[in-house]
Amino acid sequence: MNVSIAFAGSRIDRADHVRADPERLSGLINPRARLLRMNGLSPVVSTEGSLEWGTLAEAADDADLVFLGLDGECACFAQVPTSLGGDPGPASREMRSAMAMLGESDLATFGGARSLCDWHARHRFCARCGSETKIGKGGWQRTCVSESCGAQHFPRVDPVTIMLVEHEGRVLLGRQPRFPKGFYSALAGFVEPGESLEEAVMRETLEEAGVRVRDVEYVASQPWPFPSSLMIGCFAHADDPGIVVDETELEDARWFERADVVEALEAEERGGPGRAFTAPPAYAIAHLLMKSWVGRG
Amino acid sequence: MNVSIAFAGSRIDRADHVRADPERLSGLINPRARLLRMNGLSPVVSTEGSLEWGTLAEAADDADLVFLGLDGECACFAQVPTSLGGDPGPASREMRSAMAMLGESDLATFGGARSLCDWHARHRFCARCGSETKIGKGGWQRTCVSESCGAQHFPRVDPVTIMLVEHEGRVLLGRQPRFPKGFYSALAGFVEPGESLEEAVMRETLEEAGVRVRDVEYVASQPWPFPSSLMIGCFAHADDPGIVVDETELEDARWFERADVVEALEAEERGGPGRAFTAPPAYAIAHLLMKSWVGRG
Repeated sequence: MNVSIAFAGSRIDRADHVRADPERLSGLINPRARLLRMNGLSPVVSTEGSLEWGTLAEAADDADLVFLGLDGECACFAQVPTSLGGDPGPASREMRSAMAMLGESDLATFGGARSLCDWHARHRFCARCGSETKIGKGGWQRTCVSESCGAQHFPRVDPVTIMLVEHEGRVLLGRQPRFPKGFYSALAGFVEPGESLEEAVMRETLEEAGVRVRDVEYVASQPWPFPSSLMIGCFAHADDPGIVVDETELEDARWFERADVVEALEAEERGGPGRAFTAPPAYAIAHLLMKSWVGRG
Repeated sequence: MNVSIAFAGSRIDRADHVRADPERLSGLINPRARLLRMNGLSPVVSTEGSLEWGTLAEAADDADLVFLGLDGECACFAQVPTSLGGDPGPASREMRSAMAMLGESDLATFGGARSLCDWHARHRFCARCGSETKIGKGGWQRTCVSESCGAQHFPRVDPVTIMLVEHEGRVLLGRQPRFPKGFYSALAGFVEPGESLEEAVMRETLEEAGVRVRDVEYVASQPWPFPSSLMIGCFAHADDPGIVVDETELEDARWFERADVVEALEAEERGGPGRAFTAPPAYAIAHLLMKSWVGRG
C-alpha cells in the first residue's frame, strides 16, 4: 500500500557498512556528529514540532552510543539510558502527544532509536552465560565479555500479526480491559516459533474470539517501538460469526457494521468518540486497516 | 498463496490456554504424554519417515520440558538439551536429510520444537541482571529468579525479508561464499528495529547488490528454525539493472533469464544442478518464490 505509515519513513541512511568498520565509525564521532535528545525513552520535541539534537559533548563519558546512521554527511547517534525502571510498556501519554506532533521522518527516526536503546538497556548481560556484555558494531550488536563464551546478541524485532476479520460485510473488533472506554481495535498477537504469518492470524483469532478464519491476506506492515514490534496487518475471512471471547485476553469482541466503522474513523479524525465505538488513532496500523477495508466496500 | 510451505502446517494444537494454567499443565505430565525424541537439535526419524516419540519416562529428572501442544487428547513435549556447543548455525547435513524425509506436519512440529529448545538452551541467564532464569508457562517464557529483577523473557522470532527482484523479465539472484558451487538464491536480510517490511526489502537489496527497488509485494511466509526466523517472501521491481555487489555479504549477484530459472527449478526437482545456476531446494521459500514468479510470466 502506498500510504504513510507512522514510525516508517526515516530519511536517515542506516549506512550499515559503517557499523562493521571501527575506524570509519570512530572517525564519525566528531564535533559535527549529532546526539538525539531523549528524556528516558521519550523524545524531546522542539517548539516547531521536530526532534531535538545536541552534540556528542552532551553524552556521558562512559555512555553506550548507538549509531543511527547518516543524515547527509552528518552522523547521528543516540545514548542508551543507564537505567530503566520496570518492564517495557505501551506508549505513555507523553509519548502519544509526541507522536501527534512529530513529522513522518522524525517519528521513524525516533522509533528506531527508542527500540535500540530499550534493547541495550535491558541486555547488559549475556543470556547464555550470565557474564556482562559490551556494545559493538555501533550499537547493532552486544558481545559477551567472557572469553569462554563470547556469544553475540542482536537487537530483537518481534513480529506481531494484527488482523481485520470480515464476515458478510461486518468486521470483528475487540477490546482489552486496559483500553479507554468504548475503544475497539483489530485483534492482534505475537507470531510464535514454528508458525507462518498466516497460521498466526488463524490461531490468534481462534484463541481470542473463537472465530475460525481463512484467506489471510497481507495488507501492510509497521514498526512499533513499544518496545520493538513489527506489526503485520492482514485481512481474513470468517464463515461462521459465532464468537467465544477469551476473557484472559479480551473484555469483549463483536462484529461491527461498515457504516459504524466509517463513522468511528470520521469521529476519530475529528478527535471525538465514535457512535458505535471509538476507533484507533491514525498512527496505529489498525486505523489504516479499517480505512483500507471501508475503502474496498 | 495456497501451497504447502515447509515448516508450516503442524497438526498439533498449541493449546495456549494450557500454558498459563499450572494445574492443567501438570495434569498433562502423565504416562500417556509423549516426548519428542531428538539428537541434540536434530530429529530422530523412524524408518517410516516419521518423527519418533517416547514417553516422559525418557526425560531427565531435572529436564526443562517444553509443552508443544495437544495432538488430540495427547500432550506433546520436548526436552531442552542441557548443553549446546557454539553459536546457532544453518541446517546441518543430518538436518537437511531429515527435512527431505519428514511429512508436512512432522516437519512443522519439529521446527517449532527445535526453535524453542535452542532458545531455552541459550537463555539460561537474565539479559537484564545476569541472574539465572527458570522455565515457565510450559516453556513459553523464562523468568529471572532474582527477586529484585524478576524480568520475563519470551522466545524470540526474527523476521527476515527474502525478495525476488525483477527487471524486464529477469530476476536478481545472489550467492554467498558458503553456498555450494553454482548455487544462487534470492537476496535476504533481517528486518531491523524502526523499519517496515517494505523498507527492509529496499534497504537490503540496495546494501547487498546496489539495486534500488519499488513496488514491494508480499507473497508468502515461512518459519525457518535455524535458529528461529520468520522468512517473509516478497517480489519487488527494479528500474535500473546496475549491480554493485557488497563483497562482505555476497560473492556474486546477477540477473537471470526466466528460461534459466525454469530450467534450474526443473533440474533441482530431478536432484541435479541447473544449466545457468543451481536453484534452492523445494523446502526453501526462495524456491517457492521462483516457482511463483515463473508461473506469472
